[in-house]
Amino acid sequence: MSTKVAPLSGFPEFLPADRIAEQHVLDIIRRTFELHGFASIETRAVEPVERLLGKGGDADKEIYAVTRLAADRSEASSGQDGTHELGLHFDLTVPFARYVVENAGRLQLPFRRYQIQKVWRGERPQEGRYREFTQADIDVIDAGTLAPHYEAEVPLVVAEIFRQLPLPGFRIQVNNRKIPEGFYRGIGLADVAGTLRIVDKLDKIGPDRVRSALVEAGASAEQAARCLALAEIRSEDLSFVDRVRALGVSHPTLTEGLQALSAVMRVGLDLAPGALVADLRVARGLDYYTGTVYETQIVGHEGYGSVCSGGRYDALASDGRTTYPGVGISIGVSRLLGLLVPRLGLTGSRSTPTCVLVALPAEADRAAAMRTATTLRARGIPTEVAPSADKFGKQIRYADRRGIPYVWFATAEGDQVKDIRSGEQTGADVASWLPPQEDLHPGIRLRPR
Amino acid sequence: MSTKVAPLSGFPEFLPADRIAEQHVLDIIRRTFELHGFASIETRAVEPVERLLGKGGDADKEIYAVTRLAADRSEASSGQDGTHELGLHFDLTVPFARYVVENAGRLQLPFRRYQIQKVWRGERPQEGRYREFTQADIDVIDAGTLAPHYEAEVPLVVAEIFRQLPLPGFRIQVNNRKIPEGFYRGIGLADVAGTLRIVDKLDKIGPDRVRSALVEAGASAEQAARCLALAEIRSEDLSFVDRVRALGVSHPTLTEGLQALSAVMRVGLDLAPGALVADLRVARGLDYYTGTVYETQIVGHEGYGSVCSGGRYDALASDGRTTYPGVGISIGVSRLLGLLVPRLGLTGSRSTPTCVLVALPAEADRAAAMRTATTLRARGIPTEVAPSADKFGKQIRYADRRGIPYVWFATAEGDQVKDIRSGEQTGADVASWLPPQEDLHPGIRLRPR
Repeated sequence: MSTKVAPLSGFPEFLPADRIAEQHVLDIIRRTFELHGFASIETRAVEPVERLLGKGGDADKEIYAVTRLAADRSEASSGQDGTHELGLHFDLTVPFARYVVENAGRLQLPFRRYQIQKVWRGERPQEGRYREFTQADIDVIDAGTLAPHYEAEVPLVVAEIFRQLPLPGFRIQVNNRKIPEGFYRGIGLADVAGTLRIVDKLDKIGPDRVRSALVEAGASAEQAARCLALAEIRSEDLSFVDRVRALGVSHPTLTEGLQALSAVMRVGLDLAPGALVADLRVARGLDYYTGTVYETQIVGHEGYGSVCSGGRYDALASDGRTTYPGVGISIGVSRLLGLLVPRLGLTGSRSTPTCVLVALPAEADRAAAMRTATTLRARGIPTEVAPSADKFGKQIRYADRRGIPYVWFATAEGDQVKDIRSGEQTGADVASWLPPQEDLHPGIRLRPR
Repeated sequence: MSTKVAPLSGFPEFLPADRIAEQHVLDIIRRTFELHGFASIETRAVEPVERLLGKGGDADKEIYAVTRLAADRSEASSGQDGTHELGLHFDLTVPFARYVVENAGRLQLPFRRYQIQKVWRGERPQEGRYREFTQADIDVIDAGTLAPHYEAEVPLVVAEIFRQLPLPGFRIQVNNRKIPEGFYRGIGLADVAGTLRIVDKLDKIGPDRVRSALVEAGASAEQAARCLALAEIRSEDLSFVDRVRALGVSHPTLTEGLQALSAVMRVGLDLAPGALVADLRVARGLDYYTGTVYETQIVGHEGYGSVCSGGRYDALASDGRTTYPGVGISIGVSRLLGLLVPRLGLTGSRSTPTCVLVALPAEADRAAAMRTATTLRARGIPTEVAPSADKFGKQIRYADRRGIPYVWFATAEGDQVKDIRSGEQTGADVASWLPPQEDLHPGIRLRPR
């Protein structure tokens, strides 16, 4: 194959040791999702473009269209078999909503599902932003109404995952859309969405420019100041309630929002102290959120942006008769690894799953070496046989270069196993020898920097 | 979301219980690959179309092109950012070859890798053939030359996997391209590829039509008969060698092929007796195979086609200076599940990972119930809390519908756990109770038919 080989910007790939670190992170995510009773589904990579365009505002700029190359060249260039135009999904929420409606009657509701898949967006690539990336989502969806306690539950699952990762710290920032909505209405600002959109830029453009943008949009200086005062409230406990009350605004929607956010924070304080922060500036750009919203910052890397976001939606999915409200949260796995691997130096403890290399005195010994390997594998020990009957020094180097910790020798005095890190070599019985648990499978380590 | 919802032909999706069966199969595959020391990689879903077109003959009819929808509408409809035209990969071999060349110098050779990913082909969907499907590949690749023992090793890994699946039986059919090549040359047929192509249709069109097609292509009746005699040889042991010799043809390439196939079969007889069949009609359509080739039939479902195929290639990847020979085999995971799920009735033992449902006497008890769930999860038991404080009968039905085996009750006399299958309810300590190992995680079962 002679075509020039080059990486594609926005489509990152890992070398084997870093891929082992990625698998380690994915395994933690899956195990934790399953411990919390979320069931896996996978949806197809493509959806009709009209469905993808139906959500997410300017999503059309990001969508990758998919057409059969042969059809593209011979038939009309648009249209998929003359029926649908297809595109790659840009998140896992839109496909999940479609899946729920498509399988209504065959799913037990409320339905707790997780989904770990690649998604694609044709955006300009930059640090932590890719054109192909992996997301790990949980959602709980029900028909008609959804109990509010799920809004407290989903961020706890994420907190449990993040605590198992070698992160310097994290903050799941929680807000409830009803708080700014009720507050804005309470001070006489009718354009809730417009106001939210401006306040959402606070981290990017700072308070002065937010203030003038609000005034430009028709708010009084007094109203703008109060919007900013609300957005600046954050607390790790329930004190945010009194601080909002102290601003002297009252509106039934505001009261409802404060109660809902208090309920979420109370559960967080009980079961994951320190993980949640009530942060009243968090808005989330997407229109479909209607209650609690979440974003997640890594401590010391706040400018990197949110690595896990989500919220409550009242009507993402509907089949006309039934509406399916839900709450969900999405871990940006590739974003997280974009921080963990290059910035924090995460990698695998070795570049292969192999724990034992069976050395080969001569090529004629291969059948015996393969039987040894088979016995070790049957007891759960990842094992391979040396590629050739080179000098033992070269066979040991084969193991060393890959981080394989043990080399197995059949000697005249019986089998022996060498820990090539310490050089220690001892007699070993193929039917009973076990490596220490931490050597059995590759783990993760931080590269010295 | 009001767009009409409909399945897309060729893009199958599973309901949760069947997805659990799929995960079970994928977990067996991954665990076995890793026990044999294969390291995971993932490659991006897209490759430049020119690279995809470079391999596989009529592959261009199958390729899905990928373009940015916005670019598609405003700019030229071909070209990706004015640089590459991209397509979804249609297998994992072509991307792997590109990955090896791209990362030459950063990979330890020989490199043993596995790759489990979705691939896409725009073919007409039919039973066991999809437009989006999952493949699970292992390959061993080296620079310059590749030791032949790997050709015996890779089918053994597959045999180990298939023995763990609830299959009625399977046969990995092995051949070596050099056998028909040397044989055809030995009887004076120079067009090896053309002859192979005709003989490859034997299962489809039968011996009479193969015979006349060979004669039409220029073979004598005698030559055609000998080609058919070769193709009809199969054996589970080494007797195929004598049967070929009895045909009275000699050619150095034939001798080489018989020795190579004998070596593979000898290892199979030693380490996986009954799994391999030397089958001299197996040719594999793809041009790049140069030695051993594999196909796999499920016993009783031979007409379903091969569920696992591969072979040895001498020069799939090259960067001009270095050539990378390899040998690989690919499990058609979706094809296999297309047999296991609808034909054999495979499904998950329940529709959720949850093992324990913590019942809720009243909504006010939710915090306590969540603490109970947290304690159980910390000991590795997948647990969820009841969605609402309904009557216990309704809470038990919630568990029953999902196949959750245990319901946990906090009573005045202490905690109790009910096995809802037997109805047995006993006292239990949240800090020490464990379900039987087989109940901890969902397994697989066969639907009664």
